[in-house]
Amino acid sequence: MGFDPRSEIFRAHEGGKLTVRSKLPLADRASLSIAYTPGVAEVSAAIAADETLAAHYTWRSRLVAVVSDGTAVLGLGNIGPAAALPVMEGKAALFNEFAGLNAVPIVLNTTDVGEIVETVVHIAPSFGGINLEDISAPRCFEVEAQLRERLDIPVFHDDQHGTAIVVLAALRNAAAVTGRNLADLRVVVSGAGAAGVACTKILLAAGIGDIAVADSRGILHAGRQDLTAVKDELARTTNRAGLVGTMHDALAGADVFLGVSAGHVGEESVQRMANRAIVFALANPNPEVDPEVAHRYAAVVATGRSDYPNQINNVLAFPGVFAGAFDAGATAITESMKLAAAQAIGDVVADSLAPDCVVPSPFDRRVAPTVAAAVAAQAKSDGVVARPGYATTS
Amino acid sequence: MGFDPRSEIFRAHEGGKLTVRSKLPLADRASLSIAYTPGVAEVSAAIAADETLAAHYTWRSRLVAVVSDGTAVLGLGNIGPAAALPVMEGKAALFNEFAGLNAVPIVLNTTDVGEIVETVVHIAPSFGGINLEDISAPRCFEVEAQLRERLDIPVFHDDQHGTAIVVLAALRNAAAVTGRNLADLRVVVSGAGAAGVACTKILLAAGIGDIAVADSRGILHAGRQDLTAVKDELARTTNRAGLVGTMHDALAGADVFLGVSAGHVGEESVQRMANRAIVFALANPNPEVDPEVAHRYAAVVATGRSDYPNQINNVLAFPGVFAGAFDAGATAITESMKLAAAQAIGDVVADSLAPDCVVPSPFDRRVAPTVAAAVAAQAKSDGVVARPGYATTS
Repeated sequence: MGFDPRSEIFRAHEGGKLTVRSKLPLADRASLSIAYTPGVAEVSAAIAADETLAAHYTWRSRLVAVVSDGTAVLGLGNIGPAAALPVMEGKAALFNEFAGLNAVPIVLNTTDVGEIVETVVHIAPSFGGINLEDISAPRCFEVEAQLRERLDIPVFHDDQHGTAIVVLAALRNAAAVTGRNLADLRVVVSGAGAAGVACTKILLAAGIGDIAVADSRGILHAGRQDLTAVKDELARTTNRAGLVGTMHDALAGADVFLGVSAGHVGEESVQRMANRAIVFALANPNPEVDPEVAHRYAAVVATGRSDYPNQINNVLAFPGVFAGAFDAGATAITESMKLAAAQAIGDVVADSLAPDCVVPSPFDRRVAPTVAAAVAAQAKSDGVVARPGYATTS
Repeated sequence: MGFDPRSEIFRAHEGGKLTVRSKLPLADRASLSIAYTPGVAEVSAAIAADETLAAHYTWRSRLVAVVSDGTAVLGLGNIGPAAALPVMEGKAALFNEFAGLNAVPIVLNTTDVGEIVETVVHIAPSFGGINLEDISAPRCFEVEAQLRERLDIPVFHDDQHGTAIVVLAALRNAAAVTGRNLADLRVVVSGAGAAGVACTKILLAAGIGDIAVADSRGILHAGRQDLTAVKDELARTTNRAGLVGTMHDALAGADVFLGVSAGHVGEESVQRMANRAIVFALANPNPEVDPEVAHRYAAVVATGRSDYPNQINNVLAFPGVFAGAFDAGATAITESMKLAAAQAIGDVVADSLAPDCVVPSPFDRRVAPTVAAAVAAQAKSDGVVARPGYATTS
């Protein structure tokens, strides 16, 4: 780490990573009169008369705003909007690379929930969907909830739902590989931030009844007096066994450890888990459980890192989720659309399922179109399609 | 006009006119680790430690937000943000085509001055400059003034200043062609909206002392009780001769008619102007004075139309103005930078000056770099360069 302008990384980032280009030529009077005045007035007049035409004759219906306030960026924390921008540019590039969508980073110089919501609502007519990114908990929950309420375009906090979707996909396959039923798993979640909350909710929605969640102070249970509203809700909807105590206590006999916390879990805790356990240690760059330690006790190990098998990477989810929502003209991304995305991701490797292959590679080009098709179909089935569908283009 | 999906114009607009692309490959683990995690964390950390590095390692320092609330779009008026979007996409494409800049349309679903200002302030860290577009008067004046006050990046309302810059360039050359001194011209301006106000101000700044401005109710003078604050200021800084009455009254003996109003001026008024008069009738698509009528009395005639010579088109100004401001790392666009831009545009045709050539063609590729160089030099001279300069790239 450190600033070395001659390094490959800094040279690659010179001038930023994105460009905007015109799809039409503008080099002469004739082309200008089509793309701009006077021709464009016909298009504007038509949309003014029938706003649904905007889906066909502007770029917004396949355009994602990647919105961040820079408060929870990678492992760097609250670094502000300017420093967050390179990450959001990268995210926008991934939307383009993996799903052929356009995406624009919007970094905000406010961390106030109300101001973030008002700002995004005011710029929303420019975009087809809102991908919230790297906004710290618990504000991220409120921002997303308010935007989902106020906007009729998809709003998706990727740190929550992208992670949750890929975790569910991997866990369903890990259960199959180890001969377990998904519903019967005893899961321990380390972390009650954005990812921990969303993972827990999607696992509950997928039918897993026995989940214990721990934050840095221990297991969430109804008796704790130090919980935020979001954690209190989690305490009431999880921990069927009424566990109290630490992560070490929770792991006794557990089938699954899911780490989304950046904490550390030692070998003495891991060895208490059930036989042929499943360990997903997703903190980057340092997994909560050292992968070599995990392999001593677990049948399936997944991390967030690219240098181990079973990489849990959000890029398996968000490009296809937005592409599918756009393909269907969806006005929201529902819980069942997320479940459909998880099923689709897992199904891609159904034929090659193995302990070191419970999720596809992030570079598996089958994933995004498969996810998009599943999400679009579910959107139609859910009846959240209010706008006319828009044919896939790229 | 009308909606015909098979027409060339509508087919050209399918899916919108812009795309966002990554400058870096993202196709494998190695490239992803440079453009995205973990490599990007080094760039973000460096910017968090020294925010001036954002000018070099993000795209924002050459990125323009084309911001509109859709209230004064072309000749269509208040058509709202969705219908304005095709125009803003075209504008963004022009920034790219003529100056190699990136630009993104931001259309807003509020017309409240305070909300527009707050929204743009909140998203400003995403951009290197703000081009305000098609916001109706008099709100546009207040929006621009407040944003200039609150932001340390260039803010430029193109309907005002783009038009004013090109008008001044053309008028200086028209004066030369007709053997007049710029300072001695008697000018009548028809229209006291965004363009009329800005044109009047730049002509005053360029040294023209005798200007009368008329709105739809007649000549602005200090005795009128029906004026907005902006028009009242114009009444006090113009009309040295103390004229009252109509456009017809004002034109008696005038050297220059400048129409930025969409009104109509008949032959009986035009014929009252001075010998070898100058008529700039810029309303689109119907000039205030029919060009054939104008040519009966005027030595120089300019319009906004592409099918006549002397087309006064903002594209001669805004790409070079922003490129120059960005090249210099300017924190604002000053009055003298606008004057420098006008001088540069006019100078491009200095060697070919003629009554039908007082401004360059919109497609003259010499214009944008010439304007950019003049604006950047003036920015440095004005001392509005607070950020490190950024080498031109495209």
